[in-house]
Amino acid sequence: MKAIVSDGGFGTRFEDVPDPLPRDDEILVEVQATSINRADLLIASKQPRGTQLGIDFVGTVLTTAADGSGPARGQRVVGLAKNNSWSEVVAVSTDRVATLPGELDAPAGAVLPVAGLTALYALERAGSLLGRSLLVTGANGGVGHLAVQLAAASGADVIAQIRENGRQFALDELPDASRISIEAADSAGAAPIDVLLDSVGGAVTAGAFARIRKGGNAVFFGNTVREDLHLRPDWGHARPGVRIEWLYLLDEITRRDVPADLSVLVRLAETRRLRPHIGGSFAWSDIDKALRSILDREVGGKVVLTL
Amino acid sequence: MKAIVSDGGFGTRFEDVPDPLPRDDEILVEVQATSINRADLLIASKQPRGTQLGIDFVGTVLTTAADGSGPARGQRVVGLAKNNSWSEVVAVSTDRVATLPGELDAPAGAVLPVAGLTALYALERAGSLLGRSLLVTGANGGVGHLAVQLAAASGADVIAQIRENGRQFALDELPDASRISIEAADSAGAAPIDVLLDSVGGAVTAGAFARIRKGGNAVFFGNTVREDLHLRPDWGHARPGVRIEWLYLLDEITRRDVPADLSVLVRLAETRRLRPHIGGSFAWSDIDKALRSILDREVGGKVVLTL
Repeated sequence: MKAIVSDGGFGTRFEDVPDPLPRDDEILVEVQATSINRADLLIASKQPRGTQLGIDFVGTVLTTAADGSGPARGQRVVGLAKNNSWSEVVAVSTDRVATLPGELDAPAGAVLPVAGLTALYALERAGSLLGRSLLVTGANGGVGHLAVQLAAASGADVIAQIRENGRQFALDELPDASRISIEAADSAGAAPIDVLLDSVGGAVTAGAFARIRKGGNAVFFGNTVREDLHLRPDWGHARPGVRIEWLYLLDEITRRDVPADLSVLVRLAETRRLRPHIGGSFAWSDIDKALRSILDREVGGKVVLTL
Repeated sequence: MKAIVSDGGFGTRFEDVPDPLPRDDEILVEVQATSINRADLLIASKQPRGTQLGIDFVGTVLTTAADGSGPARGQRVVGLAKNNSWSEVVAVSTDRVATLPGELDAPAGAVLPVAGLTALYALERAGSLLGRSLLVTGANGGVGHLAVQLAAASGADVIAQIRENGRQFALDELPDASRISIEAADSAGAAPIDVLLDSVGGAVTAGAFARIRKGGNAVFFGNTVREDLHLRPDWGHARPGVRIEWLYLLDEITRRDVPADLSVLVRLAETRRLRPHIGGSFAWSDIDKALRSILDREVGGKVVLTL
């Protein structure tokens, strides 16, 4: 079967790979759509030529799991693969999938697993959000635009921080929009916040961190600009009780009920309380164009590949 | 009455100050002993000439509180004053004192409030310590040597990290010594740890932080070397689930039951499960010598002044 593999540099190419052999707890899924995450780009750049890629997928169950767990043959499912979902068929553990209702098309489902669970689990770290002020940096991004919506749906007053004005994409047409304010990082305000969700790094993170109130939370889940975070001596005196955590999804899912949590996201999307923004949709043969659109930061939201 | 005040530089001098006028919830205490904390040195260097100093104290109640709260006249008490305990008499809120049993002399009590509560509250942030591995940097210090003992008494396996060998002072003669290992920062091991308690900063902190396991805790409560903490991009990937917190005692006590928590420390000291190391004891007229011994890092443990 055909699959997208790394070309040993920053690029990818198509290759014929062996058909997957499912373990007893795995189903075989015929892939219909997938999406691109930053994690995929990192893996593509680090792994040897010929390494398969891809985590997110939506598809149809071809064969059920031998141990009887998981969805039935013919069902549509959404889930997380182990870096091999950019292929015609993928073998997936049944504790990494949820069923996808007919109301959601394949691209709408494919954006949920990595980005949605990252946003969901990062927000959980901050505890109750009702009436609290929360700032999301990189709010245009794949995770950011979902985190903004999930936080607003949880009762938070959300500051969606974007790189510069004019790039807010679909952020201003969201449910709970009255509790979402948009702010450009290059002209950021100084209003204090209770929670920071950050994946940008550098000066953006430093500026946002300085706004956290006493007893607040900072949750990091990425670092786009690849710069160290500097905490000054006595950083805790200015905002006592602040807790700093990192959300690392690929670790987190080993300890969570992924099917249940994915189903939460699916239901939210189905009822339009969560509206993923698909910034670009490409046939998988156009993978180069799709990757380029992300690296050039041309698009907001998520970029999807359809098979 | 006489009090020690800042001289506007890094030093102190004696001055006649007005007798304190207690509020309704305050007792007057005749001070018998006090100890020196880093916070005192910071305040002395930052506040204008003539500012009173001192947090820790042990003394005898001269007058009870008008509102009926707190200890009786003539009782010995230990507590925290608002930067004015280095004086003959101090007015103290009754929610900042505990009674001191006869078994503990004044110097033994005077080392407990700031250093002991800092150690106690910092350890609390890490949750249960039973069977977990905990590293204390600056383990010779005023807080450090108490944190080592409290952690060992809580069931942790403790690595007491000191600046260099030959400086372990009384660390190796402690209760629970079999669960305390001593390590020099300049030849530190690499054994993984569950919890880091740090107040040193710089390279010492960076080295210790890198040893924290998945799901561990870092609690900071000071920064002796006054250097930034640098967290590299993706610092959370190497040790998923790590939580970083700062313990700032002067904020923490506004939310805690200080008399009850001080009593815990008093009981531990009374029963010799906690053995504060008094590295230097000076008459308060020798305050200059006492301060010098701390700034020159000649002494471990705590430095006490007696009146």
